[in-house]
Amino acid sequence: MATITNRKENFSDKLITTIQKKNSCVVVGLDPHFDLIPGTIKETFRNLHDDAFKYAANVILEFNKQIIDALEPLIGIVKLQIAFYELYGWQGIWAYTETINYAKQKGLIVIGDVKRGDVPSTAIAYANAHIGKVLINNYTETAFQSDAITVNPLLGMDSILPFIKNAEAYGKGVFVLAKTSNPSSVEFQDLLCNSKKLHQIIAEKIHEWGNRLVGNYGYSSIGAVVGATYPEDILTLRKMMPSAYLLIPGYGAQGATAEDLKNCFNSDGYGAIINASRSILYAYNNPGWKDKYGIHTWKKAAQHAVIKMNEDLNKFIPARNL
Amino acid sequence: MATITNRKENFSDKLITTIQKKNSCVVVGLDPHFDLIPGTIKETFRNLHDDAFKYAANVILEFNKQIIDALEPLIGIVKLQIAFYELYGWQGIWAYTETINYAKQKGLIVIGDVKRGDVPSTAIAYANAHIGKVLINNYTETAFQSDAITVNPLLGMDSILPFIKNAEAYGKGVFVLAKTSNPSSVEFQDLLCNSKKLHQIIAEKIHEWGNRLVGNYGYSSIGAVVGATYPEDILTLRKMMPSAYLLIPGYGAQGATAEDLKNCFNSDGYGAIINASRSILYAYNNPGWKDKYGIHTWKKAAQHAVIKMNEDLNKFIPARNL
Repeated sequence: MATITNRKENFSDKLITTIQKKNSCVVVGLDPHFDLIPGTIKETFRNLHDDAFKYAANVILEFNKQIIDALEPLIGIVKLQIAFYELYGWQGIWAYTETINYAKQKGLIVIGDVKRGDVPSTAIAYANAHIGKVLINNYTETAFQSDAITVNPLLGMDSILPFIKNAEAYGKGVFVLAKTSNPSSVEFQDLLCNSKKLHQIIAEKIHEWGNRLVGNYGYSSIGAVVGATYPEDILTLRKMMPSAYLLIPGYGAQGATAEDLKNCFNSDGYGAIINASRSILYAYNNPGWKDKYGIHTWKKAAQHAVIKMNEDLNKFIPARNL
Repeated sequence: MATITNRKENFSDKLITTIQKKNSCVVVGLDPHFDLIPGTIKETFRNLHDDAFKYAANVILEFNKQIIDALEPLIGIVKLQIAFYELYGWQGIWAYTETINYAKQKGLIVIGDVKRGDVPSTAIAYANAHIGKVLINNYTETAFQSDAITVNPLLGMDSILPFIKNAEAYGKGVFVLAKTSNPSSVEFQDLLCNSKKLHQIIAEKIHEWGNRLVGNYGYSSIGAVVGATYPEDILTLRKMMPSAYLLIPGYGAQGATAEDLKNCFNSDGYGAIINASRSILYAYNNPGWKDKYGIHTWKKAAQHAVIKMNEDLNKFIPARNL
């Protein structure tokens, strides 16, 4: 990696000022499900029909732009699950890139949910692609403008270090998988190793790795992914990683409620951001909404879902006092 | 996933007939390192200089095509590490896509080294992207034509199942990370859980997951990644997963020798494929070669490196008898 001369603003500080400004810790997951995107947007790109991937990529990008415009006053953070873009090949990755650029223009913090993890020489390439820079002859370029990404820790410290180095150098954030939200996460992540669960051993390492990147508010730019679907584990993990920002998936479509999330937060009212994807983006599809207001009000449905989610969460989050 | 009507030829059977045909279990890793690509190729695309990513993507694709042409008579399998393509943004993924297409045209088996792993709904998207199909309105499309991919098992069975289902439906292969080649793989993968190392517990699951996809030669399409750098672990893992094909990185640039690899193979002379990347692609850069033959012989250097690797391995591999 090149020598770093200008150290950038700490990611966790940016995250906290954004949460303060928008009065919301909601992360909207921009996970395109092509079938669920309103037909009016698909109609606009009918002329691209011959190239299915180009057509899909343009439809997805336009949907994302309109959702970002609708939700930007209400939220400060979006997360893109890259799998739903890889599904449409390189054109899908073009839509991923342009969505990030658009969200950044609108002042949003963008998390790339890529869950990358590999041996050190490869991890450097991933880190430079997603939260860094690449040198091509004498040009310094940026592949993806994401502010933070998720990473998989199975390969250990030397596989995480390139991401931590880039987080430090470029003011970026890293969320390391600790305990994931799926049912099978118990299979390996809950194995008992020397009287601790594997995910607790990983959590101790995340806390240790994060120490060098603690910002002005006491939080680190090295955070953790902890599934909302395991409330008892959240309680333990919150204590084991007091300065880690927790990225919490599983609210809404995956079944966790706002009350399940109360243990994610520290007594200062900070420390967690809560993701919801399908339950926001496609809220217009709920019979209760569709039958009453019609499909053409899909943006209003998404806004309404975010407002309701903010209200739900605020009932259980300690008052913010930083 | 759509109902599958035509079950395809088992991936492990295709792998074995390819190894027989080429008399080689070498996998060449097409991992572009832009700085190491010969200047003559870069010159060809000088006119694209204004768009650094387009320029880099074209240079990489052309390099890959020439390497494939040079090595195709000697080897049957290539592996693309996608990180080195993501580094160049969506244009890099275009080069990844086109390289796969070119290698397939030349009859090679292509492994996408993507190490994906996520919750079930997301794992389905990854599986459909890399070893499956996607439906866009009424069109069935393929994002990437890879024959097999690598996956990360940290999230457990429900995160692996979508890949296994696609392997079964489309005649594809899956290599699950068991023990990686990097120094820090000891950190979590070697943790003792109920008197077994974590990577051994994962290996038992890989063996179990693979049972339903065993082909005519007795090998499964669900294989495992095992680093060449841990010869003692290879011995144990080979016995724990007798029908799994092992994808072995770490030979060459990472320091493992042909002798370190003898335990990868079963007594039938099959059961492992051995990857080398930098030591083949950029063999022309070795002082011993460059000083004697000059840089313009870079393809000959790569061919020479593959022939030497084949010879080295064949000294330690039991005679093939399937």
